[in-house]
Amino acid sequence: MINVAIMGHGVVGSGVAEILINHADRITAKAQTPVNVKYILDLRDFPGLSYSDKFIKDFNIILNDDSVKVVVEVMGGINPAYDFVKSCLLKGKSVATSNKELVAAKGAELIKLANDNNVNFLFEASVGGGIPVLRPMAQCLAANEITEITGILNGTTNFILNKMIVDNMDFDAALALAQQKGFAEKNPAADIEGHDACRKVCILAALGFGKHVYPEQVNTEGITDVTLDDVESADNFGCVVKLIGHAKKLPNGKITATVRPTLVGRDCILSGVNGVFNAIMVRGDQTGDVMFYGKGAGKEATASAVVADVIDCVKHIDARKYLYWEDGSPDYVDNSYDETVRLYVRATSDNFSELEAQYEAIFPGVSCVKNKFRGEIAFITDSEKESLIKEKISGFKNLTSLKVLHTFF
Amino acid sequence: MINVAIMGHGVVGSGVAEILINHADRITAKAQTPVNVKYILDLRDFPGLSYSDKFIKDFNIILNDDSVKVVVEVMGGINPAYDFVKSCLLKGKSVATSNKELVAAKGAELIKLANDNNVNFLFEASVGGGIPVLRPMAQCLAANEITEITGILNGTTNFILNKMIVDNMDFDAALALAQQKGFAEKNPAADIEGHDACRKVCILAALGFGKHVYPEQVNTEGITDVTLDDVESADNFGCVVKLIGHAKKLPNGKITATVRPTLVGRDCILSGVNGVFNAIMVRGDQTGDVMFYGKGAGKEATASAVVADVIDCVKHIDARKYLYWEDGSPDYVDNSYDETVRLYVRATSDNFSELEAQYEAIFPGVSCVKNKFRGEIAFITDSEKESLIKEKISGFKNLTSLKVLHTFF
Repeated sequence: MINVAIMGHGVVGSGVAEILINHADRITAKAQTPVNVKYILDLRDFPGLSYSDKFIKDFNIILNDDSVKVVVEVMGGINPAYDFVKSCLLKGKSVATSNKELVAAKGAELIKLANDNNVNFLFEASVGGGIPVLRPMAQCLAANEITEITGILNGTTNFILNKMIVDNMDFDAALALAQQKGFAEKNPAADIEGHDACRKVCILAALGFGKHVYPEQVNTEGITDVTLDDVESADNFGCVVKLIGHAKKLPNGKITATVRPTLVGRDCILSGVNGVFNAIMVRGDQTGDVMFYGKGAGKEATASAVVADVIDCVKHIDARKYLYWEDGSPDYVDNSYDETVRLYVRATSDNFSELEAQYEAIFPGVSCVKNKFRGEIAFITDSEKESLIKEKISGFKNLTSLKVLHTFF
Repeated sequence: MINVAIMGHGVVGSGVAEILINHADRITAKAQTPVNVKYILDLRDFPGLSYSDKFIKDFNIILNDDSVKVVVEVMGGINPAYDFVKSCLLKGKSVATSNKELVAAKGAELIKLANDNNVNFLFEASVGGGIPVLRPMAQCLAANEITEITGILNGTTNFILNKMIVDNMDFDAALALAQQKGFAEKNPAADIEGHDACRKVCILAALGFGKHVYPEQVNTEGITDVTLDDVESADNFGCVVKLIGHAKKLPNGKITATVRPTLVGRDCILSGVNGVFNAIMVRGDQTGDVMFYGKGAGKEATASAVVADVIDCVKHIDARKYLYWEDGSPDYVDNSYDETVRLYVRATSDNFSELEAQYEAIFPGVSCVKNKFRGEIAFITDSEKESLIKEKISGFKNLTSLKVLHTFF
């Protein structure tokens, strides 16, 4: 029998407790030994549960109980999660977490600490909720060199954009609906400003390319500036607007890492990822594009991913799972690298014939959608160096508005 | 250092050899020890390769060389692969294979043999080529009870159907194109008649539900009867026609297992799986729907999945990966179970007004698409017991043609 402690009894933590306790038979079969929840750490009281007797308020009880071999960290945030996890690893306890903020900020350090103490630090649930993606990336793609990772990593923003696309709802109404349905928090900033997706890009890039990427190194843009006009105009080009997290190896040995609203062609499987679903597409040099899809959040999905990690920790109590990346460095992420891209451009002017003339002169032969009534021209450029396209765009004069978005085909 | 032997130097075998030999550094890093290809078994000669000296023609050299700890079986077919694999496992050698025919026919027996001899028998590449799906199913979904598996499991038929849908090409022309592009074999029966997809359903169902399913237990129907009329008519209902492999737990403890052309709603992510790509959707009781997507075939993709298994065998030389299912039984698959379904129906008659009248009488209130010129009515039924729908359909008289297909929304 292996004793487990759960730190945090919020949405995910209660889900973990319920699966481990209510499905004990199934867990025992998979783990090949009984898994016993000994403690649940939470500052709040939870009377009336079948397992109310397991609650404690003092972390040191867990830390100093040598019979606890696996600790689940589902408190969220960096403090005190970071200190608690570090202490557990140092004491020879394996840790399973769903805390993307912690892994994105401290992953390399905690992985090293786990290795040094011959225990495991697993965090499958930190990316894509219940979608198995980190483990398959690490294991099944072992024979591949991963070159690019592209994902829809935040269910809240995907739900909002989807409502804008399908139901013609504007951003504010879609956000309100997401909040009403419990898909968005009261303070939705972490989602809609792209920070949540940014953390997941950090973790995916670190695992895929072998070196830590810090959140502040990712060019992060949210969806607050995406309008119904953008969504409708994208449709004219056979595209949908998605919040895309992206990381890619560069020829100079560095990488790019971005989160931004992006036009995705309807031919691309990512365009069909709707509602609160997430998807992560991984490009390997041998296997080509592989995609993992599922619910990116939700109590049961996330909790089941944590429990899978717990089972793995139990099964590898004296061995180490191979999951490793090295520390990052300030110049490792190079978002100023001049990539060849296709950009979506939409420009308006009070002088439509002048705008038309400029367009014909600057982007001759590029097909466009004109809306004389709005004084608007929209188009997707040919493939060129980004700097060159932006220089061309700067040739437009007397515009009343200009929108430029990246594309993914 | 671990010595490996490769049995078979066809498309996949040569790919495995090339990855193991040309990317030795990367493989060593992942396997944490050098992996040396000692023998390649093939009856043909391969002069002029950088590794021509490794070829042998006598299986017993591999079998009797105790320094060979891992054997790759990529010969295909059941004989002599079955005898060779069995002998290797009995001799304490782990085996990695891409041979779906072998796993579908003999999986339970070979897994047991591997367990009994404390070695591993891995076969990630047997389903979905380079898509990691079996290992994530076994590991990451450990906390889930899997209830249903739905997949596009054959790239050749998906390519053909896609050409019919997108380019309005008829079946014969699309098949000829697939052959010309090397996606279909000269004798395409195994693909277009559904046998290849059937074997993958067997393996997925066995792993997902814990009990072997034999190919002859799967209701298998290919795509040879799918016409351009079907494809066009499906489009009227917002659907595409896909060859869907499906396995599902039944309330009676048994399962259904089928392969058949199916109308898939365009809202479903599976409808966006185009060309030679495959996708497997797994429904878990905790995690909901999770989908794995990628190239289902091709030398590099399949070979890289085999190599990942080799690496796993090397890393677990003294341990066993948990991958297990028990033997099947004759009554385990119950395809006569009367499920609640929605069926697509298209009927034609020389007497269109009689057909209309019958339709109004038998399926009142169900919306349909009428084509008076063709004397045709097409519709998708409401959800009802399959037996009841079929009984209703049998009420149509004097039809000149009748097509009934299953649906997946």
